Amino acid sequence: MSIVIISPGRDVSSWVKTFNKFDPKIDIQVFPDIRDKESVELAILWQHPKGILKEFPNLKLICSMGAGVDHILSDSEIPLSLPITRIVDPGLTIPMTNYVVMATLNHHRQLYRYQSNQKKKVWDMSDPELETKVGVMGVGALGGDVIQKLKFLGFSVFGYGNSPKSNTDYPYFHGDELPQFLNNVNLIICMLPLTPLTENILNLDFFRKCNKGTYIINVARGNHLVEDDLLTAIGEGTISGAFLDVFRKEPLPQEHPFWNSDKITVTPHIASVTNPNSAIPQVIENYKRIKNHKPLLNQINQILGY
Amino acid sequence: MSIVIISPGRDVSSWVKTFNKFDPKIDIQVFPDIRDKESVELAILWQHPKGILKEFPNLKLICSMGAGVDHILSDSEIPLSLPITRIVDPGLTIPMTNYVVMATLNHHRQLYRYQSNQKKKVWDMSDPELETKVGVMGVGALGGDVIQKLKFLGFSVFGYGNSPKSNTDYPYFHGDELPQFLNNVNLIICMLPLTPLTENILNLDFFRKCNKGTYIINVARGNHLVEDDLLTAIGEGTISGAFLDVFRKEPLPQEHPFWNSDKITVTPHIASVTNPNSAIPQVIENYKRIKNHKPLLNQINQILGY
Repeated sequence: MSIVIISPGRDVSSWVKTFNKFDPKIDIQVFPDIRDKESVELAILWQHPKGILKEFPNLKLICSMGAGVDHILSDSEIPLSLPITRIVDPGLTIPMTNYVVMATLNHHRQLYRYQSNQKKKVWDMSDPELETKVGVMGVGALGGDVIQKLKFLGFSVFGYGNSPKSNTDYPYFHGDELPQFLNNVNLIICMLPLTPLTENILNLDFFRKCNKGTYIINVARGNHLVEDDLLTAIGEGTISGAFLDVFRKEPLPQEHPFWNSDKITVTPHIASVTNPNSAIPQVIENYKRIKNHKPLLNQINQILGY
Repeated sequence: MSIVIISPGRDVSSWVKTFNKFDPKIDIQVFPDIRDKESVELAILWQHPKGILKEFPNLKLICSMGAGVDHILSDSEIPLSLPITRIVDPGLTIPMTNYVVMATLNHHRQLYRYQSNQKKKVWDMSDPELETKVGVMGVGALGGDVIQKLKFLGFSVFGYGNSPKSNTDYPYFHGDELPQFLNNVNLIICMLPLTPLTENILNLDFFRKCNKGTYIINVARGNHLVEDDLLTAIGEGTISGAFLDVFRKEPLPQEHPFWNSDKITVTPHIASVTNPNSAIPQVIENYKRIKNHKPLLNQINQILGY
């Protein structure tokens, strides 16, 4: 039995090293240098070439290298019967939440205004805090952690997701209740999984339903956001600005207007970078579970897409 | 019985309005328009003219308008027998902590590097997090809240203060243990009270005891920091940068070198601005307690200075 890592263009040597550290007996093959396709029972994927999994006849399990699985589900040649797991762990959650809290506080406490005033040597003590009501879209492991931590910092936080939920300790809206959700908030954090239902959800129609001056943080996927619509909404004042870590095309192309916008902060998809030391024990545990026919950790539902 | 508010150059109309809202029977006089000095039993102060309290023969209590009392204690004509209280409440704590968390996260997640890269259209995913160990100097009501919230966000946090403390749920150092404290941390948040013991504590000797590249956040008082020494320490690389809300002279003079430093973020003393709605109920409660000879809320020790 062997594990294959397929993540073209990414240096995965730290993953191989970490597998050896945790269990030196596990045989690891790294795409494109495959020695023995027949022996592969587990594939670890990030942006794999579509259709390639057909070459591994004995595959029993697919693991995402990160929290998202959209890059796997977009490969229509993967059979529904093959279980897929994702990474859920503090190694992803803590940096993600800290990134989101940073973006939230910089807007709430008007960091960019103070930075601009500093350049002009202006001492302006007025309005030290914007009244900020936070809406978190996507309340899974990552979104749920953001909600708890922003609540602990004293924010009013509202949640929105696809499915009904009861007993949340925050006001929660789902499905068609999007307008009511938007009515309650003026800072929106997109942490949704990318599915056909959520693709392009952050569009001009959405922005025009927001309270005037709403701020947008996107740490989910570039395809959640219609990028031209954001520029239009900022131009007309519907949206006051945005903090974006993900883009439809990454790296963000040189000619992209986001680079030059003084209302948009661009970071290079670094909100949460999978740490092999946190992720690999989960992969190894699932490797054992699949061998012993036990229920898997963090298995996703292929139909729902998360 | 009457209350006097002495805060020269500051618009206190919202304080007067809020007093009227909570208790319209309380007589309020605002310096310099004093009708009846004899009737004044309580003085609310912020940067009062030194010596002025001698004019109120029946004064029984002094309340600071904020968390700090150094502006009161620096008036040597105030008798030790007169009790002094300060404001301790979530209205001050939440903004202060959020400001400090923002400054901490912006350093930890390298916001300034990403802002600079955005200007140059550079997509650089390397080193998404600096390893950050936080040291909080001053672990009272405000510092203690910062410690609990940074711990909840996943940071290693160490405390330092003047007095011994037991049973803290974080490593705590006091007095002479400053070098051991500094050895454990690489981001320092100054939240100390300003006393003769702590004035100028952030000086070149202190900075040279820090781990190389330590980052400084000062939200306490300008007089904690020897400003030229910070510039020297940044110049020699001992200190990597600073986020400063308080200065020896405020507003920060136009010719001050901090305005132009790309390693220093300047904000205009807005980390925590007293909200009359939170503060005044405490003042009113102490007004009742002093009349009824009951122990006061948030009374400070004039000898310790906090």
